[in-house]
Amino acid sequence: MEKSASNGEVTAVPIPDSWNFEPNERLLGLMSLSVRGVLARIKAEMVAGGGGGGRPVIPMGHGDPSAFPCFRAAPEAVDAVAGALQSGEYNSYSTCVGLEPAHSTGLSRAQGHNKQKLNPAPALCVQSLAIEIVCSVLARPGANILLPRPGYKFYEARAVFNGMEARYFDLLPEKDWEVDTDGVQALADKNTVAIVIINPGNPCGNVYSYEHLAKVAETARKLGIFVIADEVYAHLTFGERKFVPMGVFGAVAPVITLGSLSKRWLVPGWWLGWIVTNDPSGVFQRTKVAASIRTYHYICSDPTTFVQGAVPNLLENSKEEFFQKTIKILKESADICWEKLNGTNAITCPSKPMGSMFVMVKLDLSCLQDIKDDMDFCCRLAKEESVVVLPGRVVGCKDWLRITFAIDPPSLEDGLDRLKSFCLRHSKPAQ
Amino acid sequence: MEKSASNGEVTAVPIPDSWNFEPNERLLGLMSLSVRGVLARIKAEMVAGGGGGGRPVIPMGHGDPSAFPCFRAAPEAVDAVAGALQSGEYNSYSTCVGLEPAHSTGLSRAQGHNKQKLNPAPALCVQSLAIEIVCSVLARPGANILLPRPGYKFYEARAVFNGMEARYFDLLPEKDWEVDTDGVQALADKNTVAIVIINPGNPCGNVYSYEHLAKVAETARKLGIFVIADEVYAHLTFGERKFVPMGVFGAVAPVITLGSLSKRWLVPGWWLGWIVTNDPSGVFQRTKVAASIRTYHYICSDPTTFVQGAVPNLLENSKEEFFQKTIKILKESADICWEKLNGTNAITCPSKPMGSMFVMVKLDLSCLQDIKDDMDFCCRLAKEESVVVLPGRVVGCKDWLRITFAIDPPSLEDGLDRLKSFCLRHSKPAQ
Repeated sequence: MEKSASNGEVTAVPIPDSWNFEPNERLLGLMSLSVRGVLARIKAEMVAGGGGGGRPVIPMGHGDPSAFPCFRAAPEAVDAVAGALQSGEYNSYSTCVGLEPAHSTGLSRAQGHNKQKLNPAPALCVQSLAIEIVCSVLARPGANILLPRPGYKFYEARAVFNGMEARYFDLLPEKDWEVDTDGVQALADKNTVAIVIINPGNPCGNVYSYEHLAKVAETARKLGIFVIADEVYAHLTFGERKFVPMGVFGAVAPVITLGSLSKRWLVPGWWLGWIVTNDPSGVFQRTKVAASIRTYHYICSDPTTFVQGAVPNLLENSKEEFFQKTIKILKESADICWEKLNGTNAITCPSKPMGSMFVMVKLDLSCLQDIKDDMDFCCRLAKEESVVVLPGRVVGCKDWLRITFAIDPPSLEDGLDRLKSFCLRHSKPAQ
Repeated sequence: MEKSASNGEVTAVPIPDSWNFEPNERLLGLMSLSVRGVLARIKAEMVAGGGGGGRPVIPMGHGDPSAFPCFRAAPEAVDAVAGALQSGEYNSYSTCVGLEPAHSTGLSRAQGHNKQKLNPAPALCVQSLAIEIVCSVLARPGANILLPRPGYKFYEARAVFNGMEARYFDLLPEKDWEVDTDGVQALADKNTVAIVIINPGNPCGNVYSYEHLAKVAETARKLGIFVIADEVYAHLTFGERKFVPMGVFGAVAPVITLGSLSKRWLVPGWWLGWIVTNDPSGVFQRTKVAASIRTYHYICSDPTTFVQGAVPNLLENSKEEFFQKTIKILKESADICWEKLNGTNAITCPSKPMGSMFVMVKLDLSCLQDIKDDMDFCCRLAKEESVVVLPGRVVGCKDWLRITFAIDPPSLEDGLDRLKSFCLRHSKPAQ
């Protein structure tokens, strides 16, 4: 070993390849499950392929509209965070477990629990960490968790990574993506601990009725499992059905609700989420699930302290007009999407989206030539048309597509027209 | 099940206690390992005990000085973040994998790699997530990781949680807390993947010499393991020894360096950290450790996007005077600490701190009456004197204490005087 005179760096004889560490194949395998990983691959292929003749890229693959001016965050929200930052009072670590009563009430209202007592208070956390926390708390040898198909694959990654088994129940396209409750009962056993319900739905755009949620709660009660209600799209509904929080059924089966600033306030990059337990019967106290959640906070990361500190002002100053404007654009976009997709060859849209930012459509590959599957479809669409959509396999449905309509309406029309041209161009000639 | 007329909540017959989920004892057990958990317990006992006669609490338990005016974050740093927030350009999800070249260079310099080429570029991440990422990437059945004792228990929690075995090597108090490299060699086997070095040291206040770090690197090379260099206290040194980044030995054994804004910029609540691999021989590429780290980013949380976006301006505008002021106060505090502790009964301070914000001291319980152990000492000190220090058991050393001196000097003097009174009051009468 020699110390170089010039810069303090050390040179050494070449290292022999006899290192103890080796590739983590399980981790490397997870990449194929992630939205980020697959979209990165599609974009890389688009760039390598020349990028569709220089036209602007239409990003219908990712649920993040915040880059479009029409989906810009409200100045009230930005001011609340800037104020907390500049006060200098929120540079420290935070306790992150529980909240002051005023914040709890505000967050509960934000989540739709207008008149409901919550027990205990919501805990703020890094937004996607809510999923990690729940999976980590539940994990035990042999345990399994029921996940919707199609669904958000982050759950599977987290569940599997924590040594749990992920079992999939179907959402039924012919019934507005309702849960196949018979399937759920057939799937569960005594090692099943929870069922995940995403409402409003990602990737399906579903909004469940009060009656359907009641049926899910009764099913959970019968099976002795609790409900994880992913409601990060709470209130983003634009059809006839209003959002009903799963928490109202907490007395039927205990419910853990996951919420977030990201979608309603259009700030996914702020990474602020929260967990609310809805459990008037105290089941989570008795089974120490509540204590485990609190404990997990001691070993995980917190949300940025000044973003937490901004929550009271942010909630108080948020204006209804801001939310209404978002809903109006999403409704317009969903209408455009429904109309254009129904006129596109080789694509079937089983259900008009009523909420969230997504719609699932089925590919009919038999109508197309030279397209192998959904991944092939998406890569070639990106290369030829500079349009990015997500292959359905990422959400558990091969040869489907997940399309995000939360982009500004003119870009959406352009993107869907390009999608139509692509499908026409690749259609098999009439027999 | 009945829908209440008044508020949409559902009432149901009481739930039988036949739920499938059960307490996660492994997780609940982790709480006893965490600094947060133990400090919360001590503070709770202090409050329950009446709180030391209403005097202000002196917080010498936690390494977070940001609440004191003399450790206030620099306006340049706050302005950089406020600017990124208000630009509206950083509300989205971020890619979080790698950085633009300009940022990489700045971060590398911040970490002390002034003249060194880095391979590959640093990746930003949520600060404590750096540890999680490394543990998750390395975990494989039977693998073990070598951790320093005393040391930061978050590593053990993360390693154990990911199914790895944590093995402890000693830091030697009589040698300024140097690594016991003979002990390291005796501890390692073919399933050992890495050794963790914390420099400047938490909880010991050590700063390692160039020669000692070279010896650690040679030991790692011999064992076929890599070095995880936790350098979040980089540059916070105030003795004769300057900080030497472990990365300069990357050609001897590959090094993963963990850095953070939290300590040098005094903003732990901003939660921004980074990972730098120092591996000129390309071992991490060949063994896919680098790819695994990139993949893990696809399934974990990101730092707040606008804090990431602020990094270039923050680095560019940070002033040397700000860092010098912090160092000056820490030096003064370390001097006060050393002097006062050496005059305190029943306490031995083996080594004057040269860096970071902490010092380890040994309790001599045989000089004290009615004090059972370090936990008892800390609880009673908090109750009687409103002084909070950390029981050594949390960092692996029963009947030691970890004392944070990164508080404003007058409070520190007050706190150490109260500690002295406490020890005097509880001393055994002379025989």
